Amino acid sequence: MSNHSEAPVTPVEAFEPPYYAAVFTTVRTQEQSGYSETNARMEDLVKDVPGFLGMDHAQTPGGLGITVGYFRDADALTEWRRNVEHRAAQKRGQAEWYQSYTLHVAKVERSHGFTRAQVPQIPAAG
Amino acid sequence: MSNHSEAPVTPVEAFEPPYYAAVFTTVRTQEQSGYSETNARMEDLVKDVPGFLGMDHAQTPGGLGITVGYFRDADALTEWRRNVEHRAAQKRGQAEWYQSYTLHVAKVERSHGFTRAQVPQIPAAG
Repeated sequence: MSNHSEAPVTPVEAFEPPYYAAVFTTVRTQEQSGYSETNARMEDLVKDVPGFLGMDHAQTPGGLGITVGYFRDADALTEWRRNVEHRAAQKRGQAEWYQSYTLHVAKVERSHGFTRAQVPQIPAAG
Repeated sequence: MSNHSEAPVTPVEAFEPPYYAAVFTTVRTQEQSGYSETNARMEDLVKDVPGFLGMDHAQTPGGLGITVGYFRDADALTEWRRNVEHRAAQKRGQAEWYQSYTLHVAKVERSHGFTRAQVPQIPAAG
């Protein structure tokens, strides 16, 4: 929980449509024991799913969390949904960690990205 | 984590598919003057779009922001995309506020929600 990656944050890129996005919005309870470990394990596990493209996550302190997983096709999503460890984690999430959540599974029809051009450092004249 | 005393946060509910989700993931620059005001104005404006269903937002401090807007159909999204004030805000976002962003526009095929049952407070015997 306290270990934040040092690498600069970047949103997952825009892929060539069609692909899938699974939008998972959550409000957590006070009871978070075991959450971080399970969450880290899920982040590792999902990378093994053929067709997994990437994941974005944002968490407002004390507020809403949003995780978006990107998958090449419906088969990839089905494999992830059926994963035994993932199902066990979902059960525990309902029992302990989540006050409420919503899952929206959607087929991406268009997408685009923007990245600011690097501005070269010009030394000030003096 | 400080005490938040605002109204309780709730994720946007699961609607009856099909509907659209526009997933907007952002990393912001240091230059944020005018951002809050414009963001508040956009949140107001989008509510006037016929077919706008709701919006979820999460922001990791110093990290990724994710906003997901939900719309009944493609026409609603088109109306929002063409809104003149919205287009001006996008231009200013590219010029000033965003280091990088990605937009994924997707048609929701299935969705579901979970809300924890209220546990009645039972006074301890004694």
